[in-house]
Amino acid sequence: MEEKIERLWNEVRELSLGSNSNAIETLPSPPSPIHFLRDFVSKNKPCLISNAVAHWPALSLWPDLSYLSTVLSNTSVSLHLTPDGRADSVVNDSLFASAHVECVPFTRAIDLVLNTTNAQSVAYLQQQNDCFRTEYNELAGDSDPHLPWATEAIGSLPEAVNLWIGNHKSETCFHKDHYENLYVVVSGEKHFLLLPPTDVHRMYIRDYPAAHYIYSKESEGQLKLEMEEPLRYVPWSSVNPYPCPEDRQKEVAKYPLYFNGPDPFKCTVKAGQVLYLPSMWFHHVRQSPGDGGCTIALNYWYDMQFDIKYAYFNFLESLPFGSRLIGTNCEVSDVSRRKLRDGCNSVSIMGAVESNEDYEND
Amino acid sequence: MEEKIERLWNEVRELSLGSNSNAIETLPSPPSPIHFLRDFVSKNKPCLISNAVAHWPALSLWPDLSYLSTVLSNTSVSLHLTPDGRADSVVNDSLFASAHVECVPFTRAIDLVLNTTNAQSVAYLQQQNDCFRTEYNELAGDSDPHLPWATEAIGSLPEAVNLWIGNHKSETCFHKDHYENLYVVVSGEKHFLLLPPTDVHRMYIRDYPAAHYIYSKESEGQLKLEMEEPLRYVPWSSVNPYPCPEDRQKEVAKYPLYFNGPDPFKCTVKAGQVLYLPSMWFHHVRQSPGDGGCTIALNYWYDMQFDIKYAYFNFLESLPFGSRLIGTNCEVSDVSRRKLRDGCNSVSIMGAVESNEDYEND
Repeated sequence: MEEKIERLWNEVRELSLGSNSNAIETLPSPPSPIHFLRDFVSKNKPCLISNAVAHWPALSLWPDLSYLSTVLSNTSVSLHLTPDGRADSVVNDSLFASAHVECVPFTRAIDLVLNTTNAQSVAYLQQQNDCFRTEYNELAGDSDPHLPWATEAIGSLPEAVNLWIGNHKSETCFHKDHYENLYVVVSGEKHFLLLPPTDVHRMYIRDYPAAHYIYSKESEGQLKLEMEEPLRYVPWSSVNPYPCPEDRQKEVAKYPLYFNGPDPFKCTVKAGQVLYLPSMWFHHVRQSPGDGGCTIALNYWYDMQFDIKYAYFNFLESLPFGSRLIGTNCEVSDVSRRKLRDGCNSVSIMGAVESNEDYEND
Repeated sequence: MEEKIERLWNEVRELSLGSNSNAIETLPSPPSPIHFLRDFVSKNKPCLISNAVAHWPALSLWPDLSYLSTVLSNTSVSLHLTPDGRADSVVNDSLFASAHVECVPFTRAIDLVLNTTNAQSVAYLQQQNDCFRTEYNELAGDSDPHLPWATEAIGSLPEAVNLWIGNHKSETCFHKDHYENLYVVVSGEKHFLLLPPTDVHRMYIRDYPAAHYIYSKESEGQLKLEMEEPLRYVPWSSVNPYPCPEDRQKEVAKYPLYFNGPDPFKCTVKAGQVLYLPSMWFHHVRQSPGDGGCTIALNYWYDMQFDIKYAYFNFLESLPFGSRLIGTNCEVSDVSRRKLRDGCNSVSIMGAVESNEDYEND
């Protein structure tokens, strides 16, 4: 079985994605709707598109943060706060941690994003709930409400449009979305790692108990993790593709399918470019700020087709792969249940959650 | 594993194909290229289209066989001959049998198709090698060289266009093609059974040694089977979806995944209609003659995309399914090898090939 799944990883690359490179196809101008549908959406294949949004006022206006602060001077927005820039990520191989979310005036929020030194937390303006068309409505005229060639190809208007303003410390961990994603960078650069859905076993997805960051009275401005009540499990990948050098050997041993398998596709999306990130592709994102000090991006989520490809994916995901992560769901769940039973549902990110070594001795 | 594969059969139907019916979607007029690509080709989903070829002179001209005989009076065409109307089919669970093919004057060929009583063989005018654009070039003006909405959707002209003229005795056994298939009925009706590629295990595909029908000196006008030399194996399904009543119980026991699984999709294509038969779908075809006494059809084979769907299919097909056919590849091969070793490479269709019972006692 393992051998057959590995053959699938390679066959998808050989047939469709290009096996000789981990770069993705680039288009010098937006494709026609039928070209986009035939060669990318239908094939579930990413591409990077230049010159698709060159006419947007946003490209020149938004990198000037004083412009944004003026236009949004009376607007409050959703701000995500984490201790380390990683929201929606697995912490200590044991918990799925969501950001602390506050609604704050835009001008205050942007200050927190820019002030990266000596801060106890990393601020990221984002909310994946169609925030651009709700919170940032004042900016609507600076961009297009949809990407016409994508809309015509997919056959419907975007389900959500989300704005992202952050700094170099924010990073999005490996995950997939049930949407066709058109990702436009307006300022700075986004650095994507991409894996096709057929590589699902390389992501080591496990069910983790959900927690979120909170400020508590006792925490003196530090974010702490609080378990969700009632207990909820979130299937998530804990693969960190960029471990620090001293952890690398350990991480490779824990996630050999990721580190020893085919290279992920790599793609840097520059200001003015659009990435087509196909539904169900696993993606990890880091970012570099533009001249104004922030990375600014807008992404369009279009409905995906739940068709034969999706059914095949669910089937593949349901199959076991021999290699197993140290620290299984069961162990994680036991720890979490014990914590809850003991009345401890708030844990500091540093130290209080058992380390992986503790699990092994559990 | 078996349970997961069965869930896949159902999920494809529930998500994409419509689980409450074994009918396929019908369109009252040809779709736009983008509609056809988005909702059918990309989803690998069949549809039946009316009013797409209403302007073809062929619809009124071809059912009059005297018209065809006049236009093709100087033309020789490929004629397929079999004892029972089944070419490219598994015979006695032991051999893959191809038709005897002759190049004969069209007028002679059409006589053989029409003369179904007292004939020792069943004649079928067909050749899946682009025969319409080569052998039947005189008829080109009566139809269109391609279906414009399909050509624009798929992005290329047809790779082959094939003409089929046969009688009610000819039948096409379950198989799949590596093409997107647009199937136009011009006279009479074609009755399709369709199964999606995800049902591959229900087809009981095994490698069979290839043979073809020949006339030999000694056969007194009867077709006999001759093993191909050198020995060649063809992977094929031996499921007969319409066993005669007295064999039904035995066939259900041999092919329980086919007979006890979800119903195949059923579709009758009438004169003037077009079936979109997606690449890799298994199909079985029977036919009813039109007024002129023949069933006449034209099919357009367009290139398929060898993309993630194809890779998923290959992966699925490579997985074992617990239930096994009585008489495996190995046994079949042994018998064939023995035949060749014993110098017997020509066998009559009736009797000389061991029956399935013989295998079990082998």
